[in-house]
Amino acid sequence: MTEFEQGTAVARRAGAPGVYDAELDAGWRIGGGINGGLLLSLVGRALGDHLGEAGGHPQPVSLSGYYVSPSRPGPAEVHVEQIRSGRTLSTGAATLRQTADDGTSVERLRVLAGYGDLSRSDEDVRTSAKPPQLPPVEQCIGTDAAPPQFLASAELLQRLDLRLDPAYVGWALGKPSGEGKIQGWLRMADGHEPDPLLLLFAVDALPPTTFDLGLFGWTPTVELTVHVRALPAPGWLRVVHSTRNLAGGFLEEDCEIWDSNDRLVAQSRQLAVVPR
Amino acid sequence: MTEFEQGTAVARRAGAPGVYDAELDAGWRIGGGINGGLLLSLVGRALGDHLGEAGGHPQPVSLSGYYVSPSRPGPAEVHVEQIRSGRTLSTGAATLRQTADDGTSVERLRVLAGYGDLSRSDEDVRTSAKPPQLPPVEQCIGTDAAPPQFLASAELLQRLDLRLDPAYVGWALGKPSGEGKIQGWLRMADGHEPDPLLLLFAVDALPPTTFDLGLFGWTPTVELTVHVRALPAPGWLRVVHSTRNLAGGFLEEDCEIWDSNDRLVAQSRQLAVVPR
Repeated sequence: MTEFEQGTAVARRAGAPGVYDAELDAGWRIGGGINGGLLLSLVGRALGDHLGEAGGHPQPVSLSGYYVSPSRPGPAEVHVEQIRSGRTLSTGAATLRQTADDGTSVERLRVLAGYGDLSRSDEDVRTSAKPPQLPPVEQCIGTDAAPPQFLASAELLQRLDLRLDPAYVGWALGKPSGEGKIQGWLRMADGHEPDPLLLLFAVDALPPTTFDLGLFGWTPTVELTVHVRALPAPGWLRVVHSTRNLAGGFLEEDCEIWDSNDRLVAQSRQLAVVPR
Repeated sequence: MTEFEQGTAVARRAGAPGVYDAELDAGWRIGGGINGGLLLSLVGRALGDHLGEAGGHPQPVSLSGYYVSPSRPGPAEVHVEQIRSGRTLSTGAATLRQTADDGTSVERLRVLAGYGDLSRSDEDVRTSAKPPQLPPVEQCIGTDAAPPQFLASAELLQRLDLRLDPAYVGWALGKPSGEGKIQGWLRMADGHEPDPLLLLFAVDALPPTTFDLGLFGWTPTVELTVHVRALPAPGWLRVVHSTRNLAGGFLEEDCEIWDSNDRLVAQSRQLAVVPR
């Protein structure tokens, strides 16, 4: 089992169809809570198990997560509901809950999702989007160069092999580009190869684009929608994050992931809260 | 009451908190079903009523709708659940259902949403996105020029005053640009001025971008997420739709709406099914 498989593992609860137990590992923390993309992957694994068995659609095509409260290391449970099973897609809903210190059950994340079969071949591919122009991996910046106080609250980064484009890491030296962009090469530190569930995590794994606007502090996610557009090939992923509109206390963060075959394998957008 | 207010009206059901009754009007049909944006606005109105009363957050900030089955003209009901009420946002879920011919209750649309207060002023606005360059309204193309067989299954268009940029209407003459873009000026035919709920409709009101790729036929929406980024000013809206990746039987459609003050007031993305 890879770290990612362990971190997103879910166990069917006996006698309770659609209910899954999980353990949120402290190693996926960032800024005090468990990373939102990791939670989406974990819920996505439970959805795939339930919808795959019920409707024959095991792979995530679209997930929308609304983050209700920060998740903490420890036990969690996922409740999955199948809404509909169609010919090409199954639609489902899921809830991630934890038990608070006072014993009450607290909702962390609510998800809607469409699941399908990404392995079906479809010849018609028209992608006008262009892959990012990145310097070679060896010319990019590893996260071990980040300030120790940042790394101390970003345990997640130790699970990644992330090499950021030097053009957009000026913020680490106090000189953000102001463009609102972060991009780089990404693979898992333990060699876990890309798969659809990993993409749900990878769209939320980079530092926030607000760093490149000179705004530090955390940017809590309100809503994150991911579309998985193709099965990713093995090897490095190229991940591009950008924001084009910071206003009214919120910003959107768009993400594209390209695989080693130059295929656009995931697109996402999240609405996040501007750091104060 | 304007046509849009009538089309999205919901009535609280006595003795059933969170339950709303509605009537889907045939005048909002397109391609045989009720337009997905109109349905999102209607559900959004019910969410605003329920979350506004309960949590003081009456306006849509983010809505994600998963379209489960095509809606038909006639009675419908919306069930709203408040998931959480926080300081700046309330989170809710909603379901739109209709009764099928055989008397069973059928789900049409499932929604997750974040509601807030868009009127709170926030001085920090950094928009690197650029408003679309459109010819003047009088040089754009009204939908009355569309083929009669198209208009016959798009009753919705009669409710709009839509003027499309001639650069991207070549498809009407058999010469699509191939760029995957549609843009134009939009206002309601009966003078209903822009408001947050109207934006939920406006992001799904234009012909699909697939027309500009030379693909005709309908593009059913799988998932549509809208972020309302500011209160819109009165007057014409400028609406831009584009797609950058058609693959695996799906395409994404991005939409931006700019108001008469040159403010980016809404951003949306939907995942839709490629016409066969």
